[in-house]
Amino acid sequence: MSQRREPDISSISGLEHWKNEETELPETYIVIKIIPSIHEKALQWFAGKIRGKKSDGGGELVAILQPRTNADEEFTFHISATKIKLLEVAEEIELVKPYSKGNPREFSVAELDEFLADGKTIDDLLTLSDKQTIVLHELENIRAANYEKHIPGYSLYKLYENQAIIPFAQNRELISKMYPLHDQEELKKLAASWYMPRFFKQPIDDIKNYFGESIALYFAFLEYYTLALAVPAVLGLIGCIFSETVPFFCVFNVIWVTLFLEFWRRKSNEFAYKWGTIAMSSMDEPRPGFKGVMGVDAVTGKVCPQSPRFMTYVKMYAVSLPIVIVCMILAFYLMLVSFWAEDYVKQMEEPNDYLIMVPSIVYTILVLVISIYFRHLATYLTEWENHRTQSQFERHRVTKLVLFEFVNNFLSLFYIAFVMRDIDMLRSQLQTMLIISQGINNFQEVFLPLGMNFYSKQSQKTTTAGGDEKTSENGGSFPLLNIPQLQSDDPRIKQAQKEGSMEEYQDTFDDYLELYIQFGYVFLFSSVYPIAAVWALLNNVMEIRADAYKVCKLFRRPFIRKVKDIGAWQRSFEVLGGLSILTNCGVLYLSPDIRKRFPDYSDVQLLIVFMCLEQLLLGVRYLLHIAISDKPEWVRVALARKSYESKQALKFERSQRNKKILYRFRTVQ
Amino acid sequence: MSQRREPDISSISGLEHWKNEETELPETYIVIKIIPSIHEKALQWFAGKIRGKKSDGGGELVAILQPRTNADEEFTFHISATKIKLLEVAEEIELVKPYSKGNPREFSVAELDEFLADGKTIDDLLTLSDKQTIVLHELENIRAANYEKHIPGYSLYKLYENQAIIPFAQNRELISKMYPLHDQEELKKLAASWYMPRFFKQPIDDIKNYFGESIALYFAFLEYYTLALAVPAVLGLIGCIFSETVPFFCVFNVIWVTLFLEFWRRKSNEFAYKWGTIAMSSMDEPRPGFKGVMGVDAVTGKVCPQSPRFMTYVKMYAVSLPIVIVCMILAFYLMLVSFWAEDYVKQMEEPNDYLIMVPSIVYTILVLVISIYFRHLATYLTEWENHRTQSQFERHRVTKLVLFEFVNNFLSLFYIAFVMRDIDMLRSQLQTMLIISQGINNFQEVFLPLGMNFYSKQSQKTTTAGGDEKTSENGGSFPLLNIPQLQSDDPRIKQAQKEGSMEEYQDTFDDYLELYIQFGYVFLFSSVYPIAAVWALLNNVMEIRADAYKVCKLFRRPFIRKVKDIGAWQRSFEVLGGLSILTNCGVLYLSPDIRKRFPDYSDVQLLIVFMCLEQLLLGVRYLLHIAISDKPEWVRVALARKSYESKQALKFERSQRNKKILYRFRTVQ
Repeated sequence: MSQRREPDISSISGLEHWKNEETELPETYIVIKIIPSIHEKALQWFAGKIRGKKSDGGGELVAILQPRTNADEEFTFHISATKIKLLEVAEEIELVKPYSKGNPREFSVAELDEFLADGKTIDDLLTLSDKQTIVLHELENIRAANYEKHIPGYSLYKLYENQAIIPFAQNRELISKMYPLHDQEELKKLAASWYMPRFFKQPIDDIKNYFGESIALYFAFLEYYTLALAVPAVLGLIGCIFSETVPFFCVFNVIWVTLFLEFWRRKSNEFAYKWGTIAMSSMDEPRPGFKGVMGVDAVTGKVCPQSPRFMTYVKMYAVSLPIVIVCMILAFYLMLVSFWAEDYVKQMEEPNDYLIMVPSIVYTILVLVISIYFRHLATYLTEWENHRTQSQFERHRVTKLVLFEFVNNFLSLFYIAFVMRDIDMLRSQLQTMLIISQGINNFQEVFLPLGMNFYSKQSQKTTTAGGDEKTSENGGSFPLLNIPQLQSDDPRIKQAQKEGSMEEYQDTFDDYLELYIQFGYVFLFSSVYPIAAVWALLNNVMEIRADAYKVCKLFRRPFIRKVKDIGAWQRSFEVLGGLSILTNCGVLYLSPDIRKRFPDYSDVQLLIVFMCLEQLLLGVRYLLHIAISDKPEWVRVALARKSYESKQALKFERSQRNKKILYRFRTVQ
Repeated sequence: MSQRREPDISSISGLEHWKNEETELPETYIVIKIIPSIHEKALQWFAGKIRGKKSDGGGELVAILQPRTNADEEFTFHISATKIKLLEVAEEIELVKPYSKGNPREFSVAELDEFLADGKTIDDLLTLSDKQTIVLHELENIRAANYEKHIPGYSLYKLYENQAIIPFAQNRELISKMYPLHDQEELKKLAASWYMPRFFKQPIDDIKNYFGESIALYFAFLEYYTLALAVPAVLGLIGCIFSETVPFFCVFNVIWVTLFLEFWRRKSNEFAYKWGTIAMSSMDEPRPGFKGVMGVDAVTGKVCPQSPRFMTYVKMYAVSLPIVIVCMILAFYLMLVSFWAEDYVKQMEEPNDYLIMVPSIVYTILVLVISIYFRHLATYLTEWENHRTQSQFERHRVTKLVLFEFVNNFLSLFYIAFVMRDIDMLRSQLQTMLIISQGINNFQEVFLPLGMNFYSKQSQKTTTAGGDEKTSENGGSFPLLNIPQLQSDDPRIKQAQKEGSMEEYQDTFDDYLELYIQFGYVFLFSSVYPIAAVWALLNNVMEIRADAYKVCKLFRRPFIRKVKDIGAWQRSFEVLGGLSILTNCGVLYLSPDIRKRFPDYSDVQLLIVFMCLEQLLLGVRYLLHIAISDKPEWVRVALARKSYESKQALKFERSQRNKKILYRFRTVQ
């Protein structure tokens, strides 16, 4: 289809210099690695599907095979696309681009000239990340035709009609890796303006352009949170000088946490508006993994997989929720057992300093192991729930994980505070966790991968030196038909090799989780240990740099994920904020200072006073939530204008269809 | 302008039988009564403005004067409009009408044929209420021209440019009344299907067509609430048989209240979608009372009054809020004084049964008087805050009133429950209030106006019989130029007279307030007096009929108010639902039954148990709130489809503008 377009392409403005793309080798956007042991038929079939026609479920992409050096090496495809294809898909996925007049808007081929104002070329218009996103979209939408019942050569790998075959092949581990390539020049520019010179302000828009909305929003949140932490940190330092500041921190923190989260939501909506993701909804195009019979979409009228939403609800509430709750109870029980074991060891006849540490060490290791299994379980369950969009999938997966991590990370604090009622132990526990765990985290995040990276480079050098075999031009043991091959001296082979051996950046989950746990440590019991905010602030100033370095240098380039907000994390932080009212008031009630200060009050009276304080703070939180609007005024106006314009256009379109009547009226006027 | 259109009108389908409207006297849509003592110049000016050109701020309406019988009678204008004007404004205000294909949509003149499918005429299309709404819209948009500095003859009644003059004249009491006329035939049909035969199911859509969205939504809410009450009522009855049901009712009611309010919101959004009001927002056309300099609207690009939103916020939070809080504190203090006075009287040497009642009677009267003044204050403040739309205005006015009424109606219960801790007194107070106050209310609402109506009819007959003066055809003491007059035997004169003497239906505030107070009595302390739901249910079954009768028979026809939800009431009921968790748990803790049942528990332990119960219930409420979506799936799909269609239309419109490029591409394909 794209072939038939070529002849006249030069007449389209901005396309002139693309003319000779048939002769030149096109740029590599995505690299796909297929296991060396793959069946010949399957390999041939994959290559065919990637290059095949859309009407047969193909991707209409350019696939070039990299020559192999030996039979144990993976088959490596370099995936590219024709320029026309890129433009076509850019319109289809509604890529938001700067427009000659006014705000950025969804790209449309018909308006190409408007998007190419000021002497821009198409290469300026579509960044490398855009092209990678487009190619990924097409790869993920390569689907099985109705006559393809299984992957050729693998009769057990059954296919249903219109199944997305790339995610399926990844799942079955036929495709071992799929990743976009870095743009070293861009990356250098980005890195220079990001983690090197400035103190706080990150180039969020550039990050978004290179790494996509999801990662950019994480860094924006981290920055916002770090800046906001400055206030409690300063107050925490001042608080060290004065005594009896507990009630003040209790009230202050509740208000600060509420304001911080409400204003972040506004800020996040500002980004979402600027990036054109604010209108994303659960009705959007389904994600590749969404299962369902093909049907006409109720919103767009296009044909895509359909599955009733209530089945997802049934699965969520009747199966997943009980399973998660059971897991949480087990994790809670495990925590109790570790406390009991510690008590038991302490009460032994000859308490041994090392023996005392055994229960908590065993507990820590067990939690780590169980967490890994639970992640698999949560991913599996969420996949099985069959959510329509990637955002829904992420939200429900993160919700499950957060619930479980909540038990692992915070319940022991609750136990110490309200069952053991040992405020000093609580304080020391907080201190240890904050300082040590953050230290370990930063080490894990930066130095460990750095070291591993260095080690793997070393070993790579050795292998390259040792086994400099002759490359076999025909792609290995069997001949592949019709697939062009790269020259064996093409620099892209080295780049693909190098980046392929880097670690994969999973998603932002671990980064957010780290902040979430920190947030909990700082604010759940802030009245006990107000200086916590200072440690958190110091950590985060480093964290910004560490995370930025990590994502730029240590990981394979991640695919872009479009998001409109931080998803389940917003609510998770809010729930933590709500709980902090309860815990801070509870600690206030238990704190011996308060009892000394009000010796005339009975226990019941004190409890009632703190209950009233808690209710009052809950009320204040609710009022702030109501009074602060979700979106800044200018975003609301801009959205209203857009919807007004669309409505007018719809009216206009309809009136065009009824021109005859309109004409009659016009003559009357 | 509308005059120039007449000649060709017959060529437009459906307009044929409207041809002879110049010769016939047009239907009366709205009646305006102007005080008899008005200055001649002002009267002439009003008549001129109503009939004047839009470009001079006029209404382009038809105004016919009713002949006066004596010089003390008011000047009565019958306001009508040409058919073209009606259609024109119907499009402007985006009246939602049934469409030949698919869902109802905004009326547009260009698509007239589509709206007139199935042999409909224009009179079928626009109901009398539609026409009245249209005429009211035009009346409210009659504005002062820049050269009109004050109302002629009243140099003190200054005008600013583009001020809406009809609301201003009403405010200055030059216009004494303005009301639409009933449609007796329609009304009879509506009444027959409404309050006469059926048990519960009301014809909500017909009510909406006749009385508008605001009133229809009130009745829909009343019906929904009454149906939902059946569950707690049945449980309350069963609860009488068993003892110690208090904890059960505490938990049950919290869940019931939450579910009821969440599902009502869904239901309300369904109505709003069907009625085409769901997209109403604070960016809509400003209400007539909105003050501001004329400017280009950021959303629509039309010229209308503009005033920065932050000024409204400043006024609200810096002035109105403190004033309302002071009033609430005063009302609270008044309540305390009445309790103290009662205590004082009780402790006198010879307690007198009548004397004991004095404080509470004085308090009740004082509260009534103060409430009236507070309503004026709240209306004045909200007007001064200068909200842009009618819905915003209503919401902030209702919020103020509800806060004040909350103190008056519920704080005494809190005082009895938690300060006096007298559960028996609380129960008897609840019983008295529910049974007596509801009885009084129903009496006030139906029988009083019924009697007054009867009395006024009687006295009317006497005056008509006594003073049968000759009607003066020239409209009273001075001649009015260019204003056509009704025949003195026109039946509309009698109808306008009769309906003018009926009481005015203010708004739904009193009706909602009654439900709100009832809701509070039933659920705030439901664990103490679970049978309350039975009384409320019985009352509401009567209330539906009483309110329906009232609005159909006893009141002047109200103007239609478009709303998309029940406004501030949703939140008010939700807050009450939230508070009911606190109060019910508090009562549980105080109830002697519980103490008897758990004699081993110390006071502190009991309190902690109930605190935990409260927190748990708050958590359950939050989870239910998250899990239940605001809008039913089908509404969300329909809205998404509409927005998708509009977006496509906008794209199409833009691509039309870029036809050249499009053409080039098409040739390439």
